[in-house]
Amino acid sequence: MNPKPKVIAFDIFGTVVDWHGSIAAEVQRLKLPVDSNAFATAWRKGYQPAMARVRSGELPWTKIDDLHRMILDGILEDFSLTTLSESDKQHLNLVWHRLNPWPDSVQGLTQLKSKFTIVTLSNGNLSLLANMAKHGALPWDLILSAEVFKHYKPDPETYLGVAHIFDLQPHEVMLAAAHKDDLLAAHHCGLQTAFIERPYEFGPGHIRQDLQRESFTNYHAKNIIDLATQLVL
Amino acid sequence: MNPKPKVIAFDIFGTVVDWHGSIAAEVQRLKLPVDSNAFATAWRKGYQPAMARVRSGELPWTKIDDLHRMILDGILEDFSLTTLSESDKQHLNLVWHRLNPWPDSVQGLTQLKSKFTIVTLSNGNLSLLANMAKHGALPWDLILSAEVFKHYKPDPETYLGVAHIFDLQPHEVMLAAAHKDDLLAAHHCGLQTAFIERPYEFGPGHIRQDLQRESFTNYHAKNIIDLATQLVL
Repeated sequence: MNPKPKVIAFDIFGTVVDWHGSIAAEVQRLKLPVDSNAFATAWRKGYQPAMARVRSGELPWTKIDDLHRMILDGILEDFSLTTLSESDKQHLNLVWHRLNPWPDSVQGLTQLKSKFTIVTLSNGNLSLLANMAKHGALPWDLILSAEVFKHYKPDPETYLGVAHIFDLQPHEVMLAAAHKDDLLAAHHCGLQTAFIERPYEFGPGHIRQDLQRESFTNYHAKNIIDLATQLVL
Repeated sequence: MNPKPKVIAFDIFGTVVDWHGSIAAEVQRLKLPVDSNAFATAWRKGYQPAMARVRSGELPWTKIDDLHRMILDGILEDFSLTTLSESDKQHLNLVWHRLNPWPDSVQGLTQLKSKFTIVTLSNGNLSLLANMAKHGALPWDLILSAEVFKHYKPDPETYLGVAHIFDLQPHEVMLAAAHKDDLLAAHHCGLQTAFIERPYEFGPGHIRQDLQRESFTNYHAKNIIDLATQLVL
């Protein structure tokens, strides 16, 4: 068993906040005439391809806010939503700044903060993460983002960047995430890893089936309170 | 009168935390056989020349932690302190992560946070600022540093960088600082400015005489609670 980490870096979308539920709720609040679950899923689905366009050099370095807007413009067309004003679209795009934490997140993070330094490590831009923390009372010690490293996860510069910022060895940092590709990339960089089960990440109709324990995760937790129980007590 | 800013960026050393008093107290706690006030003053005095070596290209980009250590090694020699071990020196160097807030800082920042986004804008590195916030319970919405912009204040990239991160115009950001050169540089970039009086920044024996109101400051406050009273109420 490794010694406990000094810094725990959290993935955000899906791990700490419920993007699917928050976006579907916003779509319903706005009374958009679409299937709110399908709309949320489609928006998120555009995310990896959009980052790939930056990685390939087709686009220059771009904040996630701007990628979200490019994807939104596409899906508004796909869903035949043609009546939104420019200011409606801007407001809707910033729903990613207003995503709600999972019910266990604030309590679990607060417990972890008493013994560890807790930070974000998200592809979300800094203002998105700062506004989200204010909205959801997330008690970060430091907000770190792809925007600081000018690399998106899973590029090694992000995971190793956290260690560099804190003058630590990679194994003194842990990534906590609900996504195995993220954890595997962090593991390959020498970080410790904690998997957080988020069965409802994709909404109530699509319960995730990939929640089994993996050899490359140091911790496996039902939620963030469970992770805190394993690490703090 | 300008509309109120959306983001308030705070200078840290001297403005939010008492570097002189905290370092002098640490020197006394360690029972170092030197004048603790003179030692604190000398350490801080090395700061601008050290940053100038980075600006001139003589040194590559360097974290303030490392600049502090270079200066420390010099003043330990100047003060004939030759008995400290390497681990003593490392611990002493990190006193900058443990600087104490002025008595009004936490309350004033908490009041401001209820209506504004409050961030740091310091030449201190990210881990220094994160550890300091944890040590002093400083309630930042976002920690920003020269380390993010790869430029030290008063380079324009730092002040304009805050506006860029939040997708704001420069006048929608305010710099709050106890130092007029910092405020003047921010003013030249189009930011609003708030001067915070810190008469005891250089210790009880050297009361600052440069506290008068200036034409380039939008607000002038006795301390951060006073600034909150002017801005929030």
